[in-house]
Amino acid sequence: MRRRVACALLALGIHSGVDAGEGMWPPSQLPDIAVLLKAAGLKSDPASLSDLTKYPMNAVISLGFCTASFVSPEGLAVTNHHCAHGAIQFNSTGEKNLLKDGFLAQDFADERPGDPALRIYVTEAITDVTEPMQRAVRSGGRDGAKVFAAWEARSKELVKACEQGGQYRCDVYTFHGGKSYALIRQLEIRDVRLVYAPPGAIGKFGGDVDNWMWPRHTGDFAFLRAYVSRDGKSVPYDKNNVPYRPRSWLKTDPQGLEAGSFAMVAGYPGRTNRWRLADELNDAIAWTYPTVIRESAALLKQIDAATQGRPNAAVKYASTVASLNNTMKNFQGQLEGFSKIDGVGQKRAQEQALDAWLAQRGDRATADSIQALRNLLVRQRNNRERDLYFSLIQPLNLTTAGRFHREGSLLSAAMDIYRLSIERDKPDAKRELGYQQRDEVRVKARLQTFDQRYDAAADRALLKYRIAQYAALPAAKRVTELDAWLGLEGDTPDLSGVDAVLDAYYAGTTLTQADERLRWFDAKRKDIEASTDSALVLARKIYPAIERLEREGKEIAGLEVQYRPAYMSAMIAYQQSQGRAVYPDANASLRVSYGRVTAYSPRDAVHYAPFTAMSGVVEKTTDQDPFDTPKAQLDAIKAQRWGSYVSPVLKQVPVNFMADLDITGGNSGSPTLNKRGELIGLAFDGNWESVSSSWIFNPALTRSIHVDIRYMLWVMDEVDHAERLIREMGLTPASE
Amino acid sequence: MRRRVACALLALGIHSGVDAGEGMWPPSQLPDIAVLLKAAGLKSDPASLSDLTKYPMNAVISLGFCTASFVSPEGLAVTNHHCAHGAIQFNSTGEKNLLKDGFLAQDFADERPGDPALRIYVTEAITDVTEPMQRAVRSGGRDGAKVFAAWEARSKELVKACEQGGQYRCDVYTFHGGKSYALIRQLEIRDVRLVYAPPGAIGKFGGDVDNWMWPRHTGDFAFLRAYVSRDGKSVPYDKNNVPYRPRSWLKTDPQGLEAGSFAMVAGYPGRTNRWRLADELNDAIAWTYPTVIRESAALLKQIDAATQGRPNAAVKYASTVASLNNTMKNFQGQLEGFSKIDGVGQKRAQEQALDAWLAQRGDRATADSIQALRNLLVRQRNNRERDLYFSLIQPLNLTTAGRFHREGSLLSAAMDIYRLSIERDKPDAKRELGYQQRDEVRVKARLQTFDQRYDAAADRALLKYRIAQYAALPAAKRVTELDAWLGLEGDTPDLSGVDAVLDAYYAGTTLTQADERLRWFDAKRKDIEASTDSALVLARKIYPAIERLEREGKEIAGLEVQYRPAYMSAMIAYQQSQGRAVYPDANASLRVSYGRVTAYSPRDAVHYAPFTAMSGVVEKTTDQDPFDTPKAQLDAIKAQRWGSYVSPVLKQVPVNFMADLDITGGNSGSPTLNKRGELIGLAFDGNWESVSSSWIFNPALTRSIHVDIRYMLWVMDEVDHAERLIREMGLTPASE
Repeated sequence: MRRRVACALLALGIHSGVDAGEGMWPPSQLPDIAVLLKAAGLKSDPASLSDLTKYPMNAVISLGFCTASFVSPEGLAVTNHHCAHGAIQFNSTGEKNLLKDGFLAQDFADERPGDPALRIYVTEAITDVTEPMQRAVRSGGRDGAKVFAAWEARSKELVKACEQGGQYRCDVYTFHGGKSYALIRQLEIRDVRLVYAPPGAIGKFGGDVDNWMWPRHTGDFAFLRAYVSRDGKSVPYDKNNVPYRPRSWLKTDPQGLEAGSFAMVAGYPGRTNRWRLADELNDAIAWTYPTVIRESAALLKQIDAATQGRPNAAVKYASTVASLNNTMKNFQGQLEGFSKIDGVGQKRAQEQALDAWLAQRGDRATADSIQALRNLLVRQRNNRERDLYFSLIQPLNLTTAGRFHREGSLLSAAMDIYRLSIERDKPDAKRELGYQQRDEVRVKARLQTFDQRYDAAADRALLKYRIAQYAALPAAKRVTELDAWLGLEGDTPDLSGVDAVLDAYYAGTTLTQADERLRWFDAKRKDIEASTDSALVLARKIYPAIERLEREGKEIAGLEVQYRPAYMSAMIAYQQSQGRAVYPDANASLRVSYGRVTAYSPRDAVHYAPFTAMSGVVEKTTDQDPFDTPKAQLDAIKAQRWGSYVSPVLKQVPVNFMADLDITGGNSGSPTLNKRGELIGLAFDGNWESVSSSWIFNPALTRSIHVDIRYMLWVMDEVDHAERLIREMGLTPASE
Repeated sequence: MRRRVACALLALGIHSGVDAGEGMWPPSQLPDIAVLLKAAGLKSDPASLSDLTKYPMNAVISLGFCTASFVSPEGLAVTNHHCAHGAIQFNSTGEKNLLKDGFLAQDFADERPGDPALRIYVTEAITDVTEPMQRAVRSGGRDGAKVFAAWEARSKELVKACEQGGQYRCDVYTFHGGKSYALIRQLEIRDVRLVYAPPGAIGKFGGDVDNWMWPRHTGDFAFLRAYVSRDGKSVPYDKNNVPYRPRSWLKTDPQGLEAGSFAMVAGYPGRTNRWRLADELNDAIAWTYPTVIRESAALLKQIDAATQGRPNAAVKYASTVASLNNTMKNFQGQLEGFSKIDGVGQKRAQEQALDAWLAQRGDRATADSIQALRNLLVRQRNNRERDLYFSLIQPLNLTTAGRFHREGSLLSAAMDIYRLSIERDKPDAKRELGYQQRDEVRVKARLQTFDQRYDAAADRALLKYRIAQYAALPAAKRVTELDAWLGLEGDTPDLSGVDAVLDAYYAGTTLTQADERLRWFDAKRKDIEASTDSALVLARKIYPAIERLEREGKEIAGLEVQYRPAYMSAMIAYQQSQGRAVYPDANASLRVSYGRVTAYSPRDAVHYAPFTAMSGVVEKTTDQDPFDTPKAQLDAIKAQRWGSYVSPVLKQVPVNFMADLDITGGNSGSPTLNKRGELIGLAFDGNWESVSSSWIFNPALTRSIHVDIRYMLWVMDEVDHAERLIREMGLTPASE
């Protein structure tokens, strides 16, 4: 919440002390805060930041789950090492583990296709579609299912019209819970190649141990490249494709920043909950987070036990393990954060103030909508155990289960095949999101890369564990169709038959063969329903339950887009009446955050400096992963071969730095820009105290963590000899 | 190693930048470094520090295992809470746990007798006895046993003469491994009472979690009082005794210090190994520390399991648990420290330089002595497993086992009784150290307080576990007498009979009854040997083994006092030739360390401030031990009732502070003095990085941790209302 007082300071000519930091600003809102950006130190024209066709915003691209940016006229893109994880893993084998060894393409021909699902999205237009979307919502009246259907139909219409031509991916983004909507058009580049990744001991230095921690010493960067057909069209991988030529690419400033400097991040933050209700925060603290932590820990144990001594199997679950660890640590951090502040109390007080303000204004209708929203939460709460444990077994994305990264299970492949066959029988506009024509290539990619993420023994161990968890629910919270398949009955069912069911399930399928999966990908629904393949049989048997729960979910979603805008409109009006401007919660659309490079004190008598240095890498180094610094790097540090990348303050090469920028998951890989909009680092993490900022932002303790451009260039130059790329970025390697 | 360069700087009139910190200086050596003390900031006369009869040294007293100091003319003494642990525990019951609740005597009559073994020692004279001691050593020739006997006899003679009158305890202290000896005479005060201890949540705030850690927020202080007979004689507790009037007592400066100030500690550091051989450090790193860590962890598990759900039993092992945890964490810290520096390599290089220097001087005799010392270490190494596992069962103090705090076991009581009866048959001068006439009162105290530390189930669990460990040694490393009692045979003995042996052992003794123990305390050897009491039978059966191993130990000790002085003399001469002065390793005698209050950086990008504050107590507070701050304290903090104890820098009451002083175990409770020799805090711990300083001192990272006088007075004044004591210290409580 940016206070008006900042503007008052500006009026007095005071250009420092501005309350920067918090805020993920949509480009369209930037002209409104131009004066603040200037005051904070921005030298380039604030208006230029809202033009998606111009420098630098046109260079800020999405990978769908991460951010990246173009850094050369030939489509070279830089992002985090952990964002390129899939592409690196896809090119790894049991013999040649690129996650460990790193990879450097010697020339264009040597650049490797990323995993088939890898995409680069270039945001080209953001159009306000609030009016047509809200009209659709109103048309449904009080019937949640009708509202959702109208909402979905309108959304699909808008998307379809936008995607004409096949080059684009469009989506309708919801802001402020439905108070406004934007149709966002992104050029979708489908041939994305792996160009360069440092060794894991640099790119993932510190691993899960250092995740969310400061001081940090991670070289979390990697390079990809966008390729298109010779005539400039976005097409799938083809060896004759040529590098994409972006309209703009970031200029790199190899000088980096020092403490106190203005810094800015542009990227695609995924999701925050800053405007959620106190009840929603309370549910997270009291149930969701503890439950997800417990289940993540259990799943990690299962994976570990099932892949023990089998590195080839373990590597298939590496990204699941990383993701579970990340989620678990994040939620633990959030709980720790909330244990120190009364977050629910803060939010309740805010809501009570809003209620009082509405009562004073006699706004009964809005108050009723807010009460209806609260009632809706009660309904969701009643089904949460069922939704979690059922959806941990099958790949339906119910809310809570969406918090788990789920590995590519046998059932997910079967369900992809069966679901697609069902959806194909409908007109495209009526097809389920995720299974429309536009999505088929992604579904196919999932089936193609299945083997990269599937190990039968681990799959079975996970499924068996999840069945036991599910079976522990009382019968009323279980799902008839799954119970029938498993032979479960009553509140404390007998599990002795489960092993036999699983034996038959794994013995009776051919979906573990790539050609079989691809054959079924093209199959008709009736053929799939006639199949005796055990995995397809299971998919078919539980599909009615999935459909039923989806309907239930849609009805709730329909009611939510009806009630929440009233709450948010009232809250925004109330905040404005208190002199506070409001930015929307993150929703994976392009945003800009700004602030400065700065230290903080995590607790009494402890002070964290904003930069880490090479000497810290040496301090942390052991001969054990994740602290096994490559010898080449240790030698270069020992010889103090800093090249031109030394910081005049540290007298060494800086490694990571902190800033007070407001970022969240999805911002990973975001370019960090200086006051002239030049690249000086990449955002890759938040500090431990920042994890609870997804609900409540604490400016004193929330810090973003960035890899310094000087470290990136130093590693490229001194350790990995990526001179080709340094030159392509318009810079000169030390050796020249 | 204090470099001569400091003196060069002094000559140039540069009074800062002096390399203070390292060094535990015997008072007699202080005049030699007077110029350094002055340069570091000492305002009082350095010469006064070497006079044991004057202020402040006469006020610096020993508890045997900790340091304390007189702070009033009526014998009021302040020390650490953890040093008063035994006295507090002794006055606790299952119903009234003073360790948890704290204790404040309302007047003199309310002051409680400490545990019977508690003593205050006032050092009154330190006399050089190098000449007579070395003459004794020389008289033994090359026969270790003879050397030891002569050494011991001379030592006892000196002690006996010194202790004439019954008021004193005297001991011969070895310096530099026998290069010099001092006879130290201490007034022994035998009636020591508990006056005041804050609640455990202040006095032990942070507990084992924060042990060795910074930032720290522990109110580690407590008050005792020395009592003597009406005619001023040191006598055991008697309610008619009166407070002892010390010759001097420390003036308290309630202003405390700020960062950068001169600070000094006087106390009784127990033991350091700064001049031990590389081989000795290597043995510690490769065997002793890992073994002790493993066994400590195992013993903690045994105690926990055996006392689960029985708070009355658990409290009896509280100090054993604390001590095992402390040792384990210390050794882990040392291993961590050594993993970062090549300590053994450093020491080897130093020894090689010495060898070369000796060779250059043609000093063959000294080189031979050093080689003989190294050979002696090989011999000790060969018996270390036997010595450890046998002496974990019985209470003989072999070297390695001496590193364990051992609880009061049934066997230790039996062994005390039997051993004393054996020694009583000898002339006093020939009696074993620890069982002479002068020691009888301590032995009796141990038998009297036995119940405070004994629980049959826990005793049995520990003994059984230790027997299993011992039995795992090959037969050649075991002890015939113990094997016979246990019925063990061969390299992999059958343990199935052990339970029956233990059943009989615990069923067949009456030593668990206090009156029986005291009856046996007075018994003759022949009566004990005729007894069928199972514990006395076991003591008798294994005694020959203990005697044999003691003889072996004495022979080695005799050889060591012969060879080590040659090594140390050579090393000192060599160091002096390199311009370095040498202080002796700690040996529990009175020492002075000086330096300043100062911060440090434990690792890259992390800076630790030298003071912690009240806000840090609040940050750490949970509702769980060891962070369960009393409500009275939280209320006072919330109300910012700082009284006059606020720091002008922090704007709060400081809690703990760091200094670069050279301290070690035994220094606990040491008064921290300002430049005028006034009390401004108590040393109570070292930081995590300091633990390996017992072998190698690292001035950049070694910090002592102190409780600030302002926190002590604030707790006394605002929380516990100990106004009586504040006034007695010559200060004025806030309320007046």
